[in-house]
Amino acid sequence: MAQSDTVKLIGSWSSGFALRARVALHLKSVEYEYLDEPDVLKSKSELLLKSNPIFKKVPVLIHGDVSICESLNIVQYVDEAWSSGPSILPSHPYDRANVRFWALYVDDKIFASLEAVGGAKDDEGRMAAAGKLMGCLATLEEAFQKSSKGLGFFGGENIGFLDIACGAILDPISVIEAFSGVKFLRQETTPGLIQWAEKFRAHEAVRPYMPNLEELIAFAKKKFNIE
Amino acid sequence: MAQSDTVKLIGSWSSGFALRARVALHLKSVEYEYLDEPDVLKSKSELLLKSNPIFKKVPVLIHGDVSICESLNIVQYVDEAWSSGPSILPSHPYDRANVRFWALYVDDKIFASLEAVGGAKDDEGRMAAAGKLMGCLATLEEAFQKSSKGLGFFGGENIGFLDIACGAILDPISVIEAFSGVKFLRQETTPGLIQWAEKFRAHEAVRPYMPNLEELIAFAKKKFNIE
Repeated sequence: MAQSDTVKLIGSWSSGFALRARVALHLKSVEYEYLDEPDVLKSKSELLLKSNPIFKKVPVLIHGDVSICESLNIVQYVDEAWSSGPSILPSHPYDRANVRFWALYVDDKIFASLEAVGGAKDDEGRMAAAGKLMGCLATLEEAFQKSSKGLGFFGGENIGFLDIACGAILDPISVIEAFSGVKFLRQETTPGLIQWAEKFRAHEAVRPYMPNLEELIAFAKKKFNIE
Repeated sequence: MAQSDTVKLIGSWSSGFALRARVALHLKSVEYEYLDEPDVLKSKSELLLKSNPIFKKVPVLIHGDVSICESLNIVQYVDEAWSSGPSILPSHPYDRANVRFWALYVDDKIFASLEAVGGAKDDEGRMAAAGKLMGCLATLEEAFQKSSKGLGFFGGENIGFLDIACGAILDPISVIEAFSGVKFLRQETTPGLIQWAEKFRAHEAVRPYMPNLEELIAFAKKKFNIE
């Protein structure tokens, strides 16, 4: 891999998916130019449309003359293309399969539940969706307890692939908590995830890229026309 | 990886997702016990529920005392855990990212379109969904032309990760074609995919595991109560 190739990342400050790519690049000490699309649902740059014509979404990593799309795909690419810094995926095939499985769970089940809470048409629907989301988070808590072995991150002592995958749900949960007044990460049901979230947000590879929560909530309110 | 560990695969004869796992195991010359769940939507074995409690779906690979779930995750695990046989994923990080991206496209866009055609409530909805599916297949055709370089498979001369991922759509397309009388893989729009499908079905790692199309159509008719 020609390390001299220029690296650019198209992201969006409010996107948890873009956050994944930024954390991975930070962990591998990759220097890159960051290009922000401030309101990517409203307007997309020519470069974004050209470099991700299929999904038209951030993040996109542009490395030399190739583009890599889809956040977890980017994280794996960064891990494989740069040998600098710690490994993001574990080395044992089973551990790799395990983190990929739970990352799929996050992108499939947890994001679907988050969207269902946000998109519910009435209180009854919202309650049902909230119950599902809490069930999913309780399942993730179990996975965390099993794989972190009390060491703080999903992979143990060090931040890794599954931490990066799960990091993307933190802001959407905070926004939905702020809108609904309901706590989804609770001491009684997800004590491990609460501690993990604090540790994750404070990590040096994460902290610089987490948006300010108040700004994020104001942005979301404007986007969804909420008073 | 202890190769002496027993290997079992829970599949279902009609599942294109289970097919992915079987092709990967064949390519790597892995000996395994195959456990078929003949009608997995209707009834699931205790072993399946125990080994995939989260999604409760086939395929599940049981290797010694661990279970690996989700078909493409299993394919990657098989590639990483057994050094025998050819590599299933390409070696260059960008090529790996590229096949993972298109596999995501298959599982996200193409399967969603297939389900939309199958689940449409009226003719208008079915026409719209069919148009979307054709658009998705035309996009996949472009990807095929670009990556196969005229050599027959997505990865070139040899069957690989993306061929295995795409193989799962062939039977659902055939079933929907039989039900609707509409051809989705057409010479005018997807000439490469038509040739590829023939080559894929005939490959020695695939042929033994492709269900008989008439049996599959009869099974689907019964399942969906179609005369």
